[in-house]
Amino acid sequence: MSSSPQTIGELAPFGSATAAELHEATEAVARQARELAKPLGELAARLVRRSPSFAVTCARGSSAHAATFAKHLIERYLGIPVAPAAPNIATIYHRGLRLKNQLFLTISQSGLSDDLIEAASAARGAGAVTAAIVNDPQSPLASICEFVLPMAAGSEFSVGATKTFVASLTAILRLTARWAGNEEISSACDRLPARLLQAAEMDWSEALPLLASANSLVVIGRGPTLAIAREAALKLKEMCSLHAEAFSSAEFRHGPIALVSSGYPILVLAPTDESACGFSDLVADLRSKGARVIVADSGAREAGRLPVMPPDQPEADAICLIQSFYGFLVRLAAQRGVDADHPRHLQKVTRTR
Amino acid sequence: MSSSPQTIGELAPFGSATAAELHEATEAVARQARELAKPLGELAARLVRRSPSFAVTCARGSSAHAATFAKHLIERYLGIPVAPAAPNIATIYHRGLRLKNQLFLTISQSGLSDDLIEAASAARGAGAVTAAIVNDPQSPLASICEFVLPMAAGSEFSVGATKTFVASLTAILRLTARWAGNEEISSACDRLPARLLQAAEMDWSEALPLLASANSLVVIGRGPTLAIAREAALKLKEMCSLHAEAFSSAEFRHGPIALVSSGYPILVLAPTDESACGFSDLVADLRSKGARVIVADSGAREAGRLPVMPPDQPEADAICLIQSFYGFLVRLAAQRGVDADHPRHLQKVTRTR
Repeated sequence: MSSSPQTIGELAPFGSATAAELHEATEAVARQARELAKPLGELAARLVRRSPSFAVTCARGSSAHAATFAKHLIERYLGIPVAPAAPNIATIYHRGLRLKNQLFLTISQSGLSDDLIEAASAARGAGAVTAAIVNDPQSPLASICEFVLPMAAGSEFSVGATKTFVASLTAILRLTARWAGNEEISSACDRLPARLLQAAEMDWSEALPLLASANSLVVIGRGPTLAIAREAALKLKEMCSLHAEAFSSAEFRHGPIALVSSGYPILVLAPTDESACGFSDLVADLRSKGARVIVADSGAREAGRLPVMPPDQPEADAICLIQSFYGFLVRLAAQRGVDADHPRHLQKVTRTR
Repeated sequence: MSSSPQTIGELAPFGSATAAELHEATEAVARQARELAKPLGELAARLVRRSPSFAVTCARGSSAHAATFAKHLIERYLGIPVAPAAPNIATIYHRGLRLKNQLFLTISQSGLSDDLIEAASAARGAGAVTAAIVNDPQSPLASICEFVLPMAAGSEFSVGATKTFVASLTAILRLTARWAGNEEISSACDRLPARLLQAAEMDWSEALPLLASANSLVVIGRGPTLAIAREAALKLKEMCSLHAEAFSSAEFRHGPIALVSSGYPILVLAPTDESACGFSDLVADLRSKGARVIVADSGAREAGRLPVMPPDQPEADAICLIQSFYGFLVRLAAQRGVDADHPRHLQKVTRTR
């Protein structure tokens, strides 16, 4: 680490730092299993001993999509409703929420965002069980939360976080497994490092021409892949200056479907559980309306279908899916003439109030 | 009512039924005050007698944006966290949420969506206090909820709901006023019919050329106007086939700002409360990046600023703001050659599971 990351990035070809970091996700997920064991055990024990009535997540950007993943998991496997925090309730209105004994889960790569720190601090003051999934366990956010769950992703250079997103999802999956006592999820987590390595190599070349020329795009997911679709859409904006927006398959029919004109590009990130019901009807319907639909799912290879890892456990599969997307993203950005390492107008740490 | 609404719509010029209905919002809001009085009093009494720990909203499309408005109001004025329901937890995974004595608030114009009915039914079975804001008090949704709050908007023809959206927001504002015992909000509600009449007449012509030629657009709001920005973006999709996406001003800096290139159009719907802090800095920053920013706020008339009603109460002001937007929307759709009464691919009632 003698040269600064900026220097490496400046000398390297477009997106090479981002590409390198995405492969580091595999090591991060393996390392995390060790580093998380103790704090995760303590937090899960606390949550099992006295179950919260609900949970509140607090995050921005990619981490907010990790929070969407957490909402799905906690509601699906614990039956506990999850609310995303609007940080402005604390930071702008200075209104205390009633959070006594409830779980307040903040997710942040840097642990430096002032608004998240202020919201977490207010939650702790209100008696919440505060936990932070954070990459820097020495950060101010970590220091004010009772439970610190390290992403263990190592230092991150790229502005568009990829390995920390994967590490956040994995930490959330492990938390759910411990809290719910779900062995199936737990063992799927253990298989993730090897699977992520393969997932990054999936060949999504077929989608390159369509997305290289697109200006506007819809990404569809559901259940475990809704968070993945949102993250993919954000990364397409950040790294490819492409206006991509994510919807659940159910929500898309309620209005946004009006966007579909002849040739309109749609990327479908299919879940591997029962929430995939209706996806093939939706895809057929969209194609009949003239949309150019590309589907990432595990069916037999055919035109318009992108390869994904064979199904294992639905939420772990969703994590592999975003890893496959990231591999594609770096290639797409280069083809669109964007340096994924230096996206327009973005800084690594965004401070908002 | 001797001729069917379809016939009226088919004979009239582009968007005329939508335009007519938007003016009916004024009557709806006045009528609603009377029809809501009794059920609202009963629900508020129940919520005050035994306060829920949290609330869950359940809605799709425009009604989901009304739910965003409800989240802001209940968190800001009651300090009670609000979670948006993912209906698939009930309809796909058949997982019961722990909802005993919690408020479960469903919002739907038709009261016919199978997934909302199923989710509300599951919530009632779990012991939640179920309430429905619904335009048809005889609908299946209304029949399975303990408290029915009628929108009182009258029958609605237009596919892109406008008067029912305004009526939903007003019902939520009245619920908050009663529940929190907030006289200021209550009296602002009483002033709304007269103000909505004026709000629909605000002249947003300045935004017409920019949006008539746009393919991609960002709409920014915050606090009380986040829900308004989301609704505006959905209506621009539905009625103008324009890819508009909404962000809070804070979230926009976390990535989506990378979309901004020279000439990129941005519509800012400014709140009239303390959450507007930082808006002028954001607008200046976006303009310095080359964006074409148009701001709806109550400042002195100048280039790039759209007129709005003089401020009264912040959340009531947000309702006037969407009414001003709707007036503009019908003109914009016609200019883009879209018949707002018959948007592409849309049906009045969307049934999803």
